[in-house]
Amino acid sequence: MHLALDPVAQDLLFREARTANTFTDEPVTDEQMRAIHDLVKYGPTAFNQNPLRITLVRSPEARERLVRHLAEGNRAKTAAAPLVAVLSADNEFHEELPALLPHFPQAKDLFFGERPARESAAALNAALQAAYFIIGVRAAGLAAGPMTGLDFEGLRKEFLDDDHTPLMVVNIGRPGPDAWFPRSPRLEYEQVVTTV
Amino acid sequence: MHLALDPVAQDLLFREARTANTFTDEPVTDEQMRAIHDLVKYGPTAFNQNPLRITLVRSPEARERLVRHLAEGNRAKTAAAPLVAVLSADNEFHEELPALLPHFPQAKDLFFGERPARESAAALNAALQAAYFIIGVRAAGLAAGPMTGLDFEGLRKEFLDDDHTPLMVVNIGRPGPDAWFPRSPRLEYEQVVTTV
Repeated sequence: MHLALDPVAQDLLFREARTANTFTDEPVTDEQMRAIHDLVKYGPTAFNQNPLRITLVRSPEARERLVRHLAEGNRAKTAAAPLVAVLSADNEFHEELPALLPHFPQAKDLFFGERPARESAAALNAALQAAYFIIGVRAAGLAAGPMTGLDFEGLRKEFLDDDHTPLMVVNIGRPGPDAWFPRSPRLEYEQVVTTV
Repeated sequence: MHLALDPVAQDLLFREARTANTFTDEPVTDEQMRAIHDLVKYGPTAFNQNPLRITLVRSPEARERLVRHLAEGNRAKTAAAPLVAVLSADNEFHEELPALLPHFPQAKDLFFGERPARESAAALNAALQAAYFIIGVRAAGLAAGPMTGLDFEGLRKEFLDDDHTPLMVVNIGRPGPDAWFPRSPRLEYEQVVTTV
């Protein structure tokens, strides 16, 4: 009763949505990915920096190269997922900043002239966008399977370059049989929130 | 047509939702914050680690101490916001892990026995949860004003301890007059997504 979001949407995005470990064979199309991007691109980032980049691993050859860098327990499900996305932070996001922040183009040099400042801003803000992306996959009626059990440096060398820092790999598709483990507990409000 | 989420919810969470810079006087209640937590607590984190912690800054005295650590341009709006939350990552989240991951309690020592491993996991996963929290504030029909223009070390010393890393400060309330700037552009799909 304290939420404006309707219960069907609450279930779709949070309460019933789960991290899937198996998927059906139904393909995930580029049109679906465009619709997800067109929704979650509006999620806020500091200075509108939008540092998240997405590599869709579609070809069987690329999928094979990807799977090698994953922890053993993540390999079979990733090999079988309809679509797999590598999410990364673009540490050179400032090149796009004058176009993204037309009322304050000097932010590019004022705040992000140095690489370490860009790397830490990109790490935080690309992670925010990774969460928006997971919510967006769910908004498309699909299940996401985000994973960080992998060799990040190997993944970077395989698919990215020195300017991109991989954040996670996400399996995407319709959930298959026995798609998830039982829901694990969450922290209580009192364990998370304090008031001063 | 490629999204399962209904258009009203799309607008509420993403398309019409904006980062607010002014707020009405309407209070934000603990019941609203509980409802937000109860929704977004289900957002996924690696190993269900749930490292996000939230400090609600309610007392005028605490609000004054907070505002001092913000960039000049963030002070007036934060002083006037109905509620302000400091979001931080708990670098000692592993203490809760056996309860949160009952089927794999050994993850606590196996993966998170060392502080640097905890810090990097907490930074990423608390950022994901910060994004879920922003979405949750919007799901409650409220506007969020997330800010990273602040003295992080000062903020940590003022409200947290060495085990907590502040991520951002979020103003929360109903949007007031002239609450936002014109929407800035976003990156096109082709600028964000590549396929291999």
